[in-house]
Amino acid sequence: MLRRFDLTGLIEEVRETNAKKIGIQLPDGIKYWIFEIVRILEKEGFEVVVSGKASYGSCDIDLELLKKVDLLMHFSHTPVIELDRVVYVPYKVEYNVESVLKTLRTEDIEFERVSLTATSQYAHKLEEVKERLEDEGFKVYLKKGSDRVKMKGQVLGCNFTSVDRRAEAVIFVGDGNFHPKGIAIYSKKDVYAVSPLEEKLRKFRKDEVEKFIRERYTLIAKAMECKNFCVVASSKPGQNRLDLAVKLRNLLNSVNCNSIIVYTDEVRLENFPCECIINTACPRISYDDWRVIKKPVLTPQEAEIIAGKRSLDDYEVDEIL
Amino acid sequence: MLRRFDLTGLIEEVRETNAKKIGIQLPDGIKYWIFEIVRILEKEGFEVVVSGKASYGSCDIDLELLKKVDLLMHFSHTPVIELDRVVYVPYKVEYNVESVLKTLRTEDIEFERVSLTATSQYAHKLEEVKERLEDEGFKVYLKKGSDRVKMKGQVLGCNFTSVDRRAEAVIFVGDGNFHPKGIAIYSKKDVYAVSPLEEKLRKFRKDEVEKFIRERYTLIAKAMECKNFCVVASSKPGQNRLDLAVKLRNLLNSVNCNSIIVYTDEVRLENFPCECIINTACPRISYDDWRVIKKPVLTPQEAEIIAGKRSLDDYEVDEIL
Repeated sequence: MLRRFDLTGLIEEVRETNAKKIGIQLPDGIKYWIFEIVRILEKEGFEVVVSGKASYGSCDIDLELLKKVDLLMHFSHTPVIELDRVVYVPYKVEYNVESVLKTLRTEDIEFERVSLTATSQYAHKLEEVKERLEDEGFKVYLKKGSDRVKMKGQVLGCNFTSVDRRAEAVIFVGDGNFHPKGIAIYSKKDVYAVSPLEEKLRKFRKDEVEKFIRERYTLIAKAMECKNFCVVASSKPGQNRLDLAVKLRNLLNSVNCNSIIVYTDEVRLENFPCECIINTACPRISYDDWRVIKKPVLTPQEAEIIAGKRSLDDYEVDEIL
Repeated sequence: MLRRFDLTGLIEEVRETNAKKIGIQLPDGIKYWIFEIVRILEKEGFEVVVSGKASYGSCDIDLELLKKVDLLMHFSHTPVIELDRVVYVPYKVEYNVESVLKTLRTEDIEFERVSLTATSQYAHKLEEVKERLEDEGFKVYLKKGSDRVKMKGQVLGCNFTSVDRRAEAVIFVGDGNFHPKGIAIYSKKDVYAVSPLEEKLRKFRKDEVEKFIRERYTLIAKAMECKNFCVVASSKPGQNRLDLAVKLRNLLNSVNCNSIIVYTDEVRLENFPCECIINTACPRISYDDWRVIKKPVLTPQEAEIIAGKRSLDDYEVDEIL
């Protein structure tokens, strides 16, 4: 499993920087290998400290740990911002392109023009997948999105700019529901999600998006009855939208919504006496986690609707570009 | 309620620093007033951002927020470390000294020599309490502890140096069980805890400490069977013991306990593949929270016992001095 990280080449690169103290940061899904990774680096003579912080993406760089070490190795995510002394360690899942095609064939894909997408762990083989899909008669768009994504076809939880608008449907290669659900919401297209490890296909239909929008309308209606608002600004380096938070606070206060700015790395705010949260941190927290948080969590665009600055018809999903 | 903070004098002081952007940080217990406090500061012309981080003590200074503002107002705790651009806002609970005496009289205190203690919110009246106790015939020690505590008789969750060893028992003024339980464990003396707001007296007997020590022995025995250890070093400025964590990791590895250092601000480590946590962050997490964490959480001294560097007879509680 460790080969997926290609540590050998990387260790040479790190050695050239003369770094002695190394910080390492891994997402939960691969923390399983942490002892093994530390032992490999120690054997090479490095002093290693592991980050205990969450690491959902490269918006989550552990700046506190970075202060204590010469170099921080951030595993499994591509950079969303450039930071000095931070090295990104790609994590590539090896998978069989043929089995992706086989899995796709289990469903009739009614469209001809498809946009091809994946998470960073799977994107390295998309050119190959594209060729095979073209052999099957599809017109395939494999597009590089905004600067925040690094690989062709790559999507993040907050960025779907690599989805080509000309496509009729989207094919996604990767694990879980988080990304394909995001693609469906943002692109308003049907999504065919292939998990190469499970060899399973799941379909996310564009009409589910309408249900999603209806839920958001209900939430906006609830929020309109609230008095005290916390506008969250994230302290995570890759989600920093404090200026936007300031604007929204001023906007809400101007229409007599009592609001304050809260700077934080976790949008829970259990002990804050507010009935509603306006979230400028990770957009997916607004969409996926508000039930857990037990208060309406609204996006910047939804806050504008509450303040009467945007109409319901002009509903837009929140994305960090 | 707000008068307890004496914001008027403070605002003058803050204005003299020419600060425009103010960060504020409050413990959960007083977050109730957050909107009121922000409005008062805004009315004075300051731009205000509230910290969303935990604030259990002044070990919890929000350094990320400090980067974004001219000045950080940290409410309700006395400084444990000095930091530039951080202002500490005392929170004093007004209480009736006579009612403290009355409450104490509900129990026969069998001792003559007592050490008088309180949390920072209650310590401002300890001189007065001392006088009244002396009127009643007690010999009262009211001692200033180490640099980490600022007021005479003041205790922290991790520092009980203001308890005078010559006393036969300890009188504590304040809320909750957290501090008096700590005093009993650390001092091995009976503690009489008076809550002035509830007008209630609770007794923490020194023999409960023996039960506590037995529990720790059981935990040490469990930990001796573990293979993979995470040694936690806190990123909180007031709990920084990374050097100690490095020493403990080396010690454990030298006796074939597989250990790594984890740098974090929350000692949960749910997703780390270790069976045991060695905690150099807040000592009280080791003593009070290990059941919630569901893994043995051991102090530095207990780690030394595991590594055979300290004997069980030489058991010592962990304190940050």
